[in-house]
Amino acid sequence: MRTPNGKTKRKTEEEEVLREIRRAFPRSASGSLRVGMGDDAAVWKPTPGMETVLTTDWFLEGSHFLRDKHPADAVGWKCLARTVSDIAAMGGKPQCFLLSLALPKELTGQWLKQFLVGLRRASRALKCELAGGDTTRREEILINISVVGEVAAGKAALRSGARPGDLIYVSGVLGAAESGLRSLLESRGAVRAKGRALLRHLYPEPRLALGQWLVAKRLASSMMDLSDGLSTDLKRLCAASGVGAVIQAESLPVAQPGQTGIELALHGGDDYELLFTVIRKNSRFIPKEFRGVPLHLIGEVQKKKGIVLVLGNGEQGELQAGGWDPFRE
Amino acid sequence: MRTPNGKTKRKTEEEEVLREIRRAFPRSASGSLRVGMGDDAAVWKPTPGMETVLTTDWFLEGSHFLRDKHPADAVGWKCLARTVSDIAAMGGKPQCFLLSLALPKELTGQWLKQFLVGLRRASRALKCELAGGDTTRREEILINISVVGEVAAGKAALRSGARPGDLIYVSGVLGAAESGLRSLLESRGAVRAKGRALLRHLYPEPRLALGQWLVAKRLASSMMDLSDGLSTDLKRLCAASGVGAVIQAESLPVAQPGQTGIELALHGGDDYELLFTVIRKNSRFIPKEFRGVPLHLIGEVQKKKGIVLVLGNGEQGELQAGGWDPFRE
Repeated sequence: MRTPNGKTKRKTEEEEVLREIRRAFPRSASGSLRVGMGDDAAVWKPTPGMETVLTTDWFLEGSHFLRDKHPADAVGWKCLARTVSDIAAMGGKPQCFLLSLALPKELTGQWLKQFLVGLRRASRALKCELAGGDTTRREEILINISVVGEVAAGKAALRSGARPGDLIYVSGVLGAAESGLRSLLESRGAVRAKGRALLRHLYPEPRLALGQWLVAKRLASSMMDLSDGLSTDLKRLCAASGVGAVIQAESLPVAQPGQTGIELALHGGDDYELLFTVIRKNSRFIPKEFRGVPLHLIGEVQKKKGIVLVLGNGEQGELQAGGWDPFRE
Repeated sequence: MRTPNGKTKRKTEEEEVLREIRRAFPRSASGSLRVGMGDDAAVWKPTPGMETVLTTDWFLEGSHFLRDKHPADAVGWKCLARTVSDIAAMGGKPQCFLLSLALPKELTGQWLKQFLVGLRRASRALKCELAGGDTTRREEILINISVVGEVAAGKAALRSGARPGDLIYVSGVLGAAESGLRSLLESRGAVRAKGRALLRHLYPEPRLALGQWLVAKRLASSMMDLSDGLSTDLKRLCAASGVGAVIQAESLPVAQPGQTGIELALHGGDDYELLFTVIRKNSRFIPKEFRGVPLHLIGEVQKKKGIVLVLGNGEQGELQAGGWDPFRE
């Protein structure tokens, strides 16, 4: 609770953190961002004919990352990249973001600097400007990111558009980030990023160009990003569309061979690939690869609710969210 | 850290909280809100000719409210009202908001219900629709609110426009919320709201109509809302404008008489009144009261940096943020 005596000191610390953020993001306003950090609110000029896409995500120490395992710059990169992934999933283009940051006093030095290095790198790579935010002191690192994006009016790709007969696609490979997380948890102390899977876990890349292309070409009848694993997220897409799905285990773009690879591809989180459906006659327009990112046909939408997983030997069963495992019994 | 085993259970809890939120805010999209809760992101249609105003605020258990002291519905009201106050301070009109909520498992029942009652009441009163959000489980209650508003292009009132000779005004009375907080902290156990000061602390009302009127009439050369107390916030406004100020202690609209009243008015937080400056020749257009809210002339902007407080007996001294106290020595 703020007290009259504690206030001045804490406010000064808050302002020190704000100064550090402003040093890392020196342009406080430019282009469409008319008023940046430092006022009561930011002012941003929307592009005529576009609709605004809005999303927010928690990124909390202990729940989403570990202070002693995840490098600070990866925390900075990932907190923005994973939120921007929601904009990609609508086919939108990110514009600006708000950063809410709560930090323990001992992390306002080197940790904050490295966090801001990663955040700035993501901000530049994803063309998403810092518009404002809120900072406070707290025993644990708490991060909340809100992103504002744009999409042509009426064109946003929703989860609810999948129809029976549509084909189901995913971008990239699945399960790599979860595999990277496991190697991180097994390692001792802080790690430097090594290995493709670990990089995928630490520095995910939202599929912005693909999402925008699918929406511009009107190819995706439904779309979402894979943040909690295919089995959980496909269930959500099917629920929103009022349909079911059949998935071919052998068609999954796995990050590693064998049963583990399929399990990771089905249930592993944090991939931030796109899951989308395409009406059958449009499937000829879906390339094998889009700007270096492979696109895989993994199954089909069906009228019957529930998600059926078909194994290579023809065996099949209902796929449970994060749960049912055809390999364990 | 999310683990393959813990995931399913936690996800189900998250979805239960989401269902509760959707029950409380049944219209998921209407009017300018094209896509509401339940997709990867919300889609909102900006009004042609308007600019978008963006702001975000932490509202954290232990830092901003106490679980055993603050009624859950007051937490719901205040987390939105205080963030909307930043939109009022720009002269903007709120449109929609994103709710990020982290809750301990034991609060997903009655506490969550009451929280949503207060939040919905604020959402309706302030005409600010729920557009989306993110929920997760956590030992402590963590809230982050991002609000999207609109203001006529180029008209937002900034902190940086105060010029020497401008007159300084505040709306309402100052120090009431801090006085209410003190009575709350001194009370035993949970309180039911009684007394005006306590109500001001629990259910602040952002000065939206006043902010919009000042901007529409181009009367405010600078403006901000008072969240951290006059001495702290006026210092920020002066810093942004590159000026100083002289404040008359006897002109402060105090919530209670005597030295304590002046101290609370100078350093008390959470009032969410508007602090604004008006060029001298426009001061005749500032009424004594705007829609039932008194407006008080409290001082003048000057070229010389620093904030001077003039007492009733003519004594004067430099006012420190939340600190210098002419009555204590």
